[in-house]
Amino acid sequence: MGDRNDANNNGNDRENNIDDDPNQKMKREEGESLSVERIFASQEVPSWRNQLTVRAFVVSFVLSILFTFIVMKLNLTTGIIPSLNVSAGLLGFFFVKVWTKFLEKSGILKQPFTRQENTVIQTCVVASSGIAFSGGFGSYLFGMSKRIAKDSSDTSDFKNPSLAWIIGFLFVVSFLGLFSVVPLRKIMIIDFKLTYPSGTATAHLINSFHTPEGAKLAKKQVRVLGKFFSFSFLWGFFQWFYTAGDDCGFGSFPSLGLKAFKHKFYFDFSATYVGVGMICPYIVNISVLLGGILSWGVMWPLIENQKGDWFSASLSSSSMHGLQGYKVFIAIAMILGDGLYNFIKVLGITLSGMYSQVRERDVLPVADNSAPTKPELSFDDQRRTELFLKDQIPTWFAVAGYVVVAAISIATLPHIFHQLKWYYILVIYIFAPTLAFCNAYGCGLTDWSLASTYGKLAIFTIGAWAGSSHGGVLAGLAACGVMMNIVSTASDLTQDFKTGYLTLASPRSMFVSQVIGTAMGCIISPSVFWLFYKAFTDLGQPESQYPAPYAVVYRNMAILGVEGFSSLPRYCLTLCYIFFGAAFLINLVKDCINKKWARFIPIPMAMAIPFYIGSYFAIDMCVGSLILFVWTKVNKAKADAFVPAVASGLICGDGIWTLPASILALAGVKPPICMKFLSRATNDRVDTFLGS
Amino acid sequence: MGDRNDANNNGNDRENNIDDDPNQKMKREEGESLSVERIFASQEVPSWRNQLTVRAFVVSFVLSILFTFIVMKLNLTTGIIPSLNVSAGLLGFFFVKVWTKFLEKSGILKQPFTRQENTVIQTCVVASSGIAFSGGFGSYLFGMSKRIAKDSSDTSDFKNPSLAWIIGFLFVVSFLGLFSVVPLRKIMIIDFKLTYPSGTATAHLINSFHTPEGAKLAKKQVRVLGKFFSFSFLWGFFQWFYTAGDDCGFGSFPSLGLKAFKHKFYFDFSATYVGVGMICPYIVNISVLLGGILSWGVMWPLIENQKGDWFSASLSSSSMHGLQGYKVFIAIAMILGDGLYNFIKVLGITLSGMYSQVRERDVLPVADNSAPTKPELSFDDQRRTELFLKDQIPTWFAVAGYVVVAAISIATLPHIFHQLKWYYILVIYIFAPTLAFCNAYGCGLTDWSLASTYGKLAIFTIGAWAGSSHGGVLAGLAACGVMMNIVSTASDLTQDFKTGYLTLASPRSMFVSQVIGTAMGCIISPSVFWLFYKAFTDLGQPESQYPAPYAVVYRNMAILGVEGFSSLPRYCLTLCYIFFGAAFLINLVKDCINKKWARFIPIPMAMAIPFYIGSYFAIDMCVGSLILFVWTKVNKAKADAFVPAVASGLICGDGIWTLPASILALAGVKPPICMKFLSRATNDRVDTFLGS
Repeated sequence: MGDRNDANNNGNDRENNIDDDPNQKMKREEGESLSVERIFASQEVPSWRNQLTVRAFVVSFVLSILFTFIVMKLNLTTGIIPSLNVSAGLLGFFFVKVWTKFLEKSGILKQPFTRQENTVIQTCVVASSGIAFSGGFGSYLFGMSKRIAKDSSDTSDFKNPSLAWIIGFLFVVSFLGLFSVVPLRKIMIIDFKLTYPSGTATAHLINSFHTPEGAKLAKKQVRVLGKFFSFSFLWGFFQWFYTAGDDCGFGSFPSLGLKAFKHKFYFDFSATYVGVGMICPYIVNISVLLGGILSWGVMWPLIENQKGDWFSASLSSSSMHGLQGYKVFIAIAMILGDGLYNFIKVLGITLSGMYSQVRERDVLPVADNSAPTKPELSFDDQRRTELFLKDQIPTWFAVAGYVVVAAISIATLPHIFHQLKWYYILVIYIFAPTLAFCNAYGCGLTDWSLASTYGKLAIFTIGAWAGSSHGGVLAGLAACGVMMNIVSTASDLTQDFKTGYLTLASPRSMFVSQVIGTAMGCIISPSVFWLFYKAFTDLGQPESQYPAPYAVVYRNMAILGVEGFSSLPRYCLTLCYIFFGAAFLINLVKDCINKKWARFIPIPMAMAIPFYIGSYFAIDMCVGSLILFVWTKVNKAKADAFVPAVASGLICGDGIWTLPASILALAGVKPPICMKFLSRATNDRVDTFLGS
Repeated sequence: MGDRNDANNNGNDRENNIDDDPNQKMKREEGESLSVERIFASQEVPSWRNQLTVRAFVVSFVLSILFTFIVMKLNLTTGIIPSLNVSAGLLGFFFVKVWTKFLEKSGILKQPFTRQENTVIQTCVVASSGIAFSGGFGSYLFGMSKRIAKDSSDTSDFKNPSLAWIIGFLFVVSFLGLFSVVPLRKIMIIDFKLTYPSGTATAHLINSFHTPEGAKLAKKQVRVLGKFFSFSFLWGFFQWFYTAGDDCGFGSFPSLGLKAFKHKFYFDFSATYVGVGMICPYIVNISVLLGGILSWGVMWPLIENQKGDWFSASLSSSSMHGLQGYKVFIAIAMILGDGLYNFIKVLGITLSGMYSQVRERDVLPVADNSAPTKPELSFDDQRRTELFLKDQIPTWFAVAGYVVVAAISIATLPHIFHQLKWYYILVIYIFAPTLAFCNAYGCGLTDWSLASTYGKLAIFTIGAWAGSSHGGVLAGLAACGVMMNIVSTASDLTQDFKTGYLTLASPRSMFVSQVIGTAMGCIISPSVFWLFYKAFTDLGQPESQYPAPYAVVYRNMAILGVEGFSSLPRYCLTLCYIFFGAAFLINLVKDCINKKWARFIPIPMAMAIPFYIGSYFAIDMCVGSLILFVWTKVNKAKADAFVPAVASGLICGDGIWTLPASILALAGVKPPICMKFLSRATNDRVDTFLGS
């Protein structure tokens, strides 16, 4: 059959698709309220120690569990994860507000609820639930397991998940990103004035909550969120009863007919993805649907017809040498093409941005901490800068922290993955701070985190270095984890610093909150994953409720990097080249033509997702889009105010239902009823069978 | 086993449960607007000929078909029929308004749309769709058929429906009621000033539509109605796809679990009954649910346990000598108890009301047509009375009409039902005008039509007179039809005269509209029934989509009247006595105690309906109640304005879907998918069967 090539690739860049929206909203808000800090001028900013309250961390812990469940569910279903910053801010506000209201009434309130404390909670929750993504439970880490190995093209080497080693692994790799960006925060936030759209949007949200009118709106939003949360939770519960057995229940509802269902076109009544569709920009949802139509509607049926010619007819349907191979590798090619384009683009912007910053810097020295309040700075900027620079974190502390953690990591990781030699890790750790900086910078400019792209870079380089005879597949995947954790944490946390800057939260309290949040995440995420892993024994099967599509994609990328293209079915490589090129080209065209038309051009990365798992979730998301569209037409102001709350409610309710669902599954409680969908002919046979 | 008794009974009194609500609303409205006619003073009232426009009858025809479908569907599912007057008024307004708007824009509008014309449409539609109820397609007429005879305790005698004889039958019996009330209209409306709550409510609605603000609200209501109409229609369409085979689709959704489903407790996703529940007063819905719990939740399981003891265990489940007998006869007993109580009560009120009217009349002569404008009459009353008396219908015309139609009827009916001798009919026609007057009078006082009670009276008297050897069962059922048509039409049409009185429509135009409407109904209703009968071959089967519960109840009443109690299973008669007494007593208590508490006492008639068919529709109706309750809590003003529109939309959309559904069934197009509900164990067996 074909050969293999060795392109690098990028997968589910979490921040990428989703945050256009808050970004736009934020800009609008900024135009409206002229000086935020004048409104807050009368409020004293608490000292950084007082920003870190016990109640904040209790709330953070509860929310971390909630969001980890949601992120984990998303990881394991489609890998599309919308930004949950807004929900975290909203729910954090709600919990502490209720608590302080209660204490106030009891007359024992010691400390009022400030926006700094709100930011601390939001930061902690983001840090903690970020681990659920960067821990690779839906990608590299789960890709190492035997369950996924079975469905990949190389089953020789695997490492099954176990609570102990995952927690250990996360603890030794997750703190490095933190230390690597701490010294750079002033440059990013104050000197470069990077926008960080998500972080800024969250800060505006938090600021608005703590003004009187904002609090009123927030209360209403919370009420709406609560309603949809309950609805979504109860809907999940209701659905559960009808899922005794495979292909039972609303998840298998052939809402567009049985033929469409066979090709994975159906509405699966998932509240989560309707909510996700409401937050994602229209073009993402349309892209996903287009991808689904192109692949499951057109290409797969055509390729299926070539069975016996292009590939052996005797292969099982899940074999990588058959149709499944086309699905996975064409998706990978498309992801790689998109990833490469964006890598080049963001790197270009980063370099040119840095170049112009450095040129400006020649006039205005970088190290000049004493006089940041230039006369042209607004009141807001002055006040924010002043407070951001008040509490310093010494650079020696950050450097020492990085070195110590790196040393521990180098010493311990080879014991976890014997395929990962200590010198591979050392090399990663030498390059990582630079890449972390690049990613944090790029994210500040474009809101686009390339964490998974850097991770894939690690897969290919370390995998090739190790070679197939020395367990290159596992070495690659493990290296991906090490790299992704550093790079992803770095961009997440710089976002948080931006949020802190805009809400006058101290960098020290931010840092402490991040450390605590990361530590929480290192415990919570593996535990939640473990619950899923034990409760749903078909986790990772392509046809199951939790197909974890990226796990097999990552594993196959690692195999590709190590072994080449030799085992791909016929014409698969040619198709891969075409889709790789198309993805690159579509992006190029999108960036070159008029903005007015560019927004109608689909996003290749989004198109690639349904290639492997089918487009049912695309239909859910389009339903979400439709709701958003109609709502906006009917009442734009109301839609703008409440769509995030409704969407968060839908996502959170369904997400948290997975907790009782997995507990029920663990306890061996099975649903009592099967809602089955049969064609008329089959139904007649079944009726005859049951009647006899 | 037991004996039989011969109590008279009353069944689904259409107007009875439903119209409390409009009544109350109307009273509120009346308090608010002081003089309606002053608002309309500037508008000229068209002559009675100009009130009868071609467009009005075209619209009436379309709406008649729509409402006949709805009433027929309700007849054949549960027999509970809410008042559709409001929908008829609303939709009539909408259609003609659109039409006149269009003509106005084209510049060729000859005659503006007046409230009199609106009343003519409403009257015509009510007259026409009234036939769908009084034609007995869900009760006496269908009860004659072989399909129903199979499920009754006497299968010897039957007469299958056929389009020709039904139309003939309806034409010779339906116009009598009309002629019988025409001479009495002045006494009822002007002298006695009876309220006729439903008619008054409709008149207020029509009046309000034709004021400028009213038209605006009506437009909004129509929009809401349209939305829910489309939703309900599409929902019906969507459901259809999943109903390949028995026990398939949303109608068999075990939403409360399989065990509850087996006992007929489930939400069957019927938009119609959710809508019906929204219009019916809370107490009706609660009564139905209570009845369901009492019967299917408690009594039937207990009686089932006595199988082999109380009745033979070898009987088929549909045998009248087994459990089915308890279901039917206890329901009949309860309906009879309630009916007897209300008969006595309404008769008492009628007699005492008439007595006091006559006493007043001694002072104020009845025949004094010349001076009805007593000084104490309000402007509204003066103006209305003046116009009501302007166009007279001569009494000789009415009497001659009655005699001619009665003669034709006596001559032809024995040819249709050879069991029905000409002298039976003569006797009925001698007594009928009195009973028609009683019913119209009682309905004017209480809004409670006892048409079916009088019908049952005919079943028992004529049935007993004919005796079992001379086809008493069919004679009784046919006599019921003759009686019900006269009595029911009489009360319906007096309601319409009241509406006409309040909207200044001429009695002549009302009469012509009624004649045309009745003629339409005599054609449309049998045709629609014929469509159902041909399309759904399981029509009338207890477990089917259209169980037509009253058909078997009526037939069994006729058998009871003719043959006595000899074939009832053990203790059935005792239970019947208990429930008969309980129904009587509950009503008595309800009327005697404080109003504040009386409204919490259930209505026995409503309780009896689920005894036979199960309580799934009760759950639908309670869902409707719940929606109404929550909506009223959230926004009372909006709920008051839009609940009738939403409910009408839900009922009409689902009702009209039955038209394409039956056409599809007739054309042999079967739904493609079966949505089946299996227990986990059965599902495993089926999966094994399908896998092998």
